[in-house]
Amino acid sequence: MSEGVTQALARYVATAKAESLPAPVRKEAARAFVNWTGCAIGGSHHETLDLALAALAPFSGPPTASVLGRSERLDPLHAALMNGISSHVFDFDDTHLRTVIHPAGPVASALLAFAEYRPVSGLDFVNAFVLGVEVECRIGNAVFPEHYDVGWHITGTTGVFGAAAAIGRVLGLDERRMSWALGLAATQPVGLREMFGTMTKSFHPGRAAQNGLTAALLAERGFTSSEHALEAKRGWANVLSVARNYDFITQGLGERYELLVDTYKPFACGIVIHPTIDGCIQLRNAEGLTAERIRSVKLRVHPLVLELTGKVVPKTGLEGKFSVYHAAAVALLEGAGGEPQFSDRAVNDPAVVALRERVSAEIDPGIAADEAYVTIALSDGRILEMHVEHAIGSLARPMTDAGLDAKFRDLADPILGAEQAQRVLALCWDIGQLESAALVAQAARLESPAGNGRTAAALHL
Amino acid sequence: MSEGVTQALARYVATAKAESLPAPVRKEAARAFVNWTGCAIGGSHHETLDLALAALAPFSGPPTASVLGRSERLDPLHAALMNGISSHVFDFDDTHLRTVIHPAGPVASALLAFAEYRPVSGLDFVNAFVLGVEVECRIGNAVFPEHYDVGWHITGTTGVFGAAAAIGRVLGLDERRMSWALGLAATQPVGLREMFGTMTKSFHPGRAAQNGLTAALLAERGFTSSEHALEAKRGWANVLSVARNYDFITQGLGERYELLVDTYKPFACGIVIHPTIDGCIQLRNAEGLTAERIRSVKLRVHPLVLELTGKVVPKTGLEGKFSVYHAAAVALLEGAGGEPQFSDRAVNDPAVVALRERVSAEIDPGIAADEAYVTIALSDGRILEMHVEHAIGSLARPMTDAGLDAKFRDLADPILGAEQAQRVLALCWDIGQLESAALVAQAARLESPAGNGRTAAALHL
Repeated sequence: MSEGVTQALARYVATAKAESLPAPVRKEAARAFVNWTGCAIGGSHHETLDLALAALAPFSGPPTASVLGRSERLDPLHAALMNGISSHVFDFDDTHLRTVIHPAGPVASALLAFAEYRPVSGLDFVNAFVLGVEVECRIGNAVFPEHYDVGWHITGTTGVFGAAAAIGRVLGLDERRMSWALGLAATQPVGLREMFGTMTKSFHPGRAAQNGLTAALLAERGFTSSEHALEAKRGWANVLSVARNYDFITQGLGERYELLVDTYKPFACGIVIHPTIDGCIQLRNAEGLTAERIRSVKLRVHPLVLELTGKVVPKTGLEGKFSVYHAAAVALLEGAGGEPQFSDRAVNDPAVVALRERVSAEIDPGIAADEAYVTIALSDGRILEMHVEHAIGSLARPMTDAGLDAKFRDLADPILGAEQAQRVLALCWDIGQLESAALVAQAARLESPAGNGRTAAALHL
Repeated sequence: MSEGVTQALARYVATAKAESLPAPVRKEAARAFVNWTGCAIGGSHHETLDLALAALAPFSGPPTASVLGRSERLDPLHAALMNGISSHVFDFDDTHLRTVIHPAGPVASALLAFAEYRPVSGLDFVNAFVLGVEVECRIGNAVFPEHYDVGWHITGTTGVFGAAAAIGRVLGLDERRMSWALGLAATQPVGLREMFGTMTKSFHPGRAAQNGLTAALLAERGFTSSEHALEAKRGWANVLSVARNYDFITQGLGERYELLVDTYKPFACGIVIHPTIDGCIQLRNAEGLTAERIRSVKLRVHPLVLELTGKVVPKTGLEGKFSVYHAAAVALLEGAGGEPQFSDRAVNDPAVVALRERVSAEIDPGIAADEAYVTIALSDGRILEMHVEHAIGSLARPMTDAGLDAKFRDLADPILGAEQAQRVLALCWDIGQLESAALVAQAARLESPAGNGRTAAALHL
């Protein structure tokens, strides 16, 4: 290679023009942003964020940036952290399937908080967002799966690069300072998988956003760092992974876009049970099913489904996310798989419990990860069968724009109220044309901690 | 092991009482604190800190904490970062020789900034400082050298634990919350060795302090994390090192103290040339040497000396630190090896250059790292020889209290003026008896950015 990996990446990010973004990439940026904003608003009153705010808001600087879905305003570094936490707290954000990176969180959290500090046009925001996602997913591609297998939470470890690159772009850093920003990002990786199951998991994308923003701000001032942070002998890729392929970072820059293989979850739970939920909802809607008419439900699923989500008697909403039995039952009864279907209420609903007890599951090694068979025996003796070849939300069958709308409204309506949520949603779709990206953040604030009038009750879920 | 490594460490830190600290450990805490405070004040007007402040001070929260040696006040998170940077910027801070950790930086930077936010007695400060140093050095012992060899800057990666433990102690965290603080520390390691030679190296202990402080503040509020962060299958030690020995963490807690094997540098350069400088100064003082009387200087040194510091013609103060020839010449002429001897002025001083050209060096694999032979041929035909068996500052020949006083004054006088520097020094020695540890930080502030009157000129080194 004639030039360094870090240098090649820094040059690309420093020079890639918004005007050169292909239309499908711009469109996908809006879709990813709609999905991310909905998740951040939806998670904004989770206990995890309450505690993070209680601990750290006392140290916030001048409050220029919004915490989406809340009334607090913070300095951009703290706002980036908080929005990154809330956008991941339901595990409902986007997924780059090849690396299991959740790319939007670190990048959008940093960018939106920064856009309330210094003006950033919607088009520049979209360009920086696309570049940030590109940087983190390419770096992830280069070290996956070894880096993830050893125990790094790849969203946090690569996310810091994504945030640094995105902020570096809107700051207009030249190639050298951009490489310093990447160096300062490399030296601040975030996230061990050991933290999964605790609040610290959601901390990772937030802290990655904050670290990346810090890195770019320091580099802007001339704070020096390595210019070979990715590929040096003691650089990031060698220290944090036992294998690496730099071609995934440097080949085809500006020609292909990782954002085009980003996916969105239609259901608020682990992706392995999505095919099952999808099949149940389709059968329910096609046949107008009710609980009384269902004698039994048989699932045939990928082996990981029972390994990861085989809980037979879930007691809490969180445990419900690890129960394919609950997921199937609630999907058949309520025709959905959103946060409300994985609440304590839903898991302990007598009707759901009664149906759950009639659900059985078997694994089949011949079934793909995004595939499932759902067989329902009806009281009238009929047997219904549904083969889900590719679950909704998979690359082969992406969520529609209307599906993203519905997901957003499910998440944001209880927090903001329907009217305000609709306004925010429209701004998100329009992000590339906005005069200022900050408009989205401002529109997604609550006026008071108690909520905007009639939404108050919803804030104490 | 009947209980987990993290749990054992958390319990120890949560329950160790200041009153149980052996007197030599308390004494060593004061010595380490004197050394650290001098370094932080001395480095406080380095360009690295100027740039970090320019980039990040605009985001500071309520300014409760001092940046030592400067007039700026910041929130404790930012102050911890800044003081950690300045204390390491001359590479003149303490060294835990077994692991090459610089232990004081991450711990003292977090503690002192925090002590200006919530009152901490001098005795509690000393206890927390000792515990923080214990935690980081023990974790370092468990993974050294493999963790360092692969490329981690061990001061930053273990320092975050030290800061979290120290702050957790003054917050009075119970065992469980202390383990969460360690978990939140584990997931935020700082520092690749690739950054050596850039400003980012000094960023590491500062960011470790800031991350550890953040971790403890979150844990205090109940922000959950892993309770097995060190030893879990995908925990810190397995992910960040190819080898580990947990006995170094858990054995003899409260019986032996790593602080007792901490060392202080008498000279402002890499430790490998300390024996040479020591020998030159001793010969100069014993014989009243002047440059005219010296015909030639021959050094016989450990092989690493020429590998790391073999620069024959240094041009800048920084390059002078990598030239054993310059170090010997300037030590013979000026009788010292402090920051002034590694300035651009010293390196380009014609008298120093002339003498430097008469210095030669050869390596001898039979010579220890803290050993050197200095042979001087005088104009009158005599030959002087000095064998430094253990350099001053080594474990075998530690710096005296008077030596630490002189080092502190060398660093602090040009910034604060002699009178204020003396006041701060006295408070540092007295740290264990102070009613409030914050007194040290308050005493070490400048009244205005231009300095305290006559020190202004010194601030533009």
